[in-house]
Amino acid sequence: MSPARVPDDAQRGYIVPVGGAEDKAHDVRILRRFVEISGGEDASIAVIPTASQLPDTGERYEHLFRDLGVREANALPYVERADTSRADWLATLGRATGIFLTGGHQLRLSTILGGTPVAKLLRSQNAHGVSIGGTSAGAAILSEHMIAFGEEGSTPHAGAAALAPGFGLTNRVIIDQHFRERDRLGRLLSALAYNPFAIGLGLDEDTAAFLDPDDVLEVIGSGAITIVDVSKLTHSSMAGAHQGDPICMTDIRMHILTNGGTFNLHTREASPPPSDPQ
Amino acid sequence: MSPARVPDDAQRGYIVPVGGAEDKAHDVRILRRFVEISGGEDASIAVIPTASQLPDTGERYEHLFRDLGVREANALPYVERADTSRADWLATLGRATGIFLTGGHQLRLSTILGGTPVAKLLRSQNAHGVSIGGTSAGAAILSEHMIAFGEEGSTPHAGAAALAPGFGLTNRVIIDQHFRERDRLGRLLSALAYNPFAIGLGLDEDTAAFLDPDDVLEVIGSGAITIVDVSKLTHSSMAGAHQGDPICMTDIRMHILTNGGTFNLHTREASPPPSDPQ
Repeated sequence: MSPARVPDDAQRGYIVPVGGAEDKAHDVRILRRFVEISGGEDASIAVIPTASQLPDTGERYEHLFRDLGVREANALPYVERADTSRADWLATLGRATGIFLTGGHQLRLSTILGGTPVAKLLRSQNAHGVSIGGTSAGAAILSEHMIAFGEEGSTPHAGAAALAPGFGLTNRVIIDQHFRERDRLGRLLSALAYNPFAIGLGLDEDTAAFLDPDDVLEVIGSGAITIVDVSKLTHSSMAGAHQGDPICMTDIRMHILTNGGTFNLHTREASPPPSDPQ
Repeated sequence: MSPARVPDDAQRGYIVPVGGAEDKAHDVRILRRFVEISGGEDASIAVIPTASQLPDTGERYEHLFRDLGVREANALPYVERADTSRADWLATLGRATGIFLTGGHQLRLSTILGGTPVAKLLRSQNAHGVSIGGTSAGAAILSEHMIAFGEEGSTPHAGAAALAPGFGLTNRVIIDQHFRERDRLGRLLSALAYNPFAIGLGLDEDTAAFLDPDDVLEVIGSGAITIVDVSKLTHSSMAGAHQGDPICMTDIRMHILTNGGTFNLHTREASPPPSDPQ
């Protein structure tokens, strides 16, 4: 499930993981921005509420997006693998200019949609310019390697993060959400300690990473994103650790970015918000 | 860490996971075939013994490959992340026509080589036609999603398989090894239950999958390969399961293939050995 190839004459759409609990009543900053990059008043938004087990999640997001002035917003409540062959829903995904995955449990997304025409279409649509976002569980699933579940705490230890394959829109990052609220630095570091090739993104609630087609992300929201860069890691003790052991990691680089800050996933350079005093 | 793009004028090299304990004293069938596809008497084999903590593993494989008549065989005993910038060893990898990863612990490979120039070069060399094989831990690491560790038993249950990112030469399969000897069907099914997009390959000892540039694998060796195809899975209960719960999976398709049998990863068609009575 790695990213679909972007055609030579196209550019990839935005990838927008949100840390959960995005504001829906006041400035609605994150969802509003998602609508803007998806075509504004011409946007056709498809909502996939599969992660949630609440019956009204899809409808709620339909209303939120319609209130933001999109042309259409349609919830596609996939609940079983057999649903993924429904031609009318595939057609809705096929004409969408933005696709949004709600919160819930990320393993519902992977077990119900993984390996189906829906997962394939998400990658293909993104490769053809369609923006794809998700909040909480919907954020975790976006990358190739996903934290399925884990333990709280700020230091890494063996077994603190269980990984599963996600939808694979990008394999440059491993995403964690509700980051500050649920004290998840330890589990994000544990996930990175297995194989220090990815960049860790710890997303606070009401905070999103807008990852543009050139792999530069901009922070939007009221919290922060913790960026964990292990590209210069000199040691990880994960290979020799037993369940529950603390993990030794040396030369971790970290950035905490707030609204307007940016990070380039290729150069690994962080920039503070332009509005901050220099 | 997904596969490097294969240039238009090239074809990918073979990917050769071996189930461990391949014969080294009698017919040496698997290593001999690996030499053949790597250039025979013109072959330059690089051996990466990083998974092992025994001091003579690299040297042992150097001798094995030289006895099979290759032009050169060189062990590159990476033991720390700092070793991965050694220019002479990168040059050896760069001129190799075949690269072989020994057994040991797969998390040593991912923690020491993951995200380094060595991992990148392995993907790039494979994309340019170099065959890459590995036994046991060296087999597990070859794919994008790797079983890092897990539990024995033939039925899947939540927590039976811990996944970590591998080297990503292919993302079509999840590999397990010492398959029959360590009773690992349950952990392979558990790994697939998270996200049923991959094909499971359970490799018995002294048995290898020779995955050719067109993604057709041929079984070579004295045991069997258990191929688990979950593309038609109608249900996985993993999302709602608690640690230790048995997992419900419906409509699994499985093939047990012996020496000479083939399986096409695209069409998902299995063929018995041509020598078998029809």
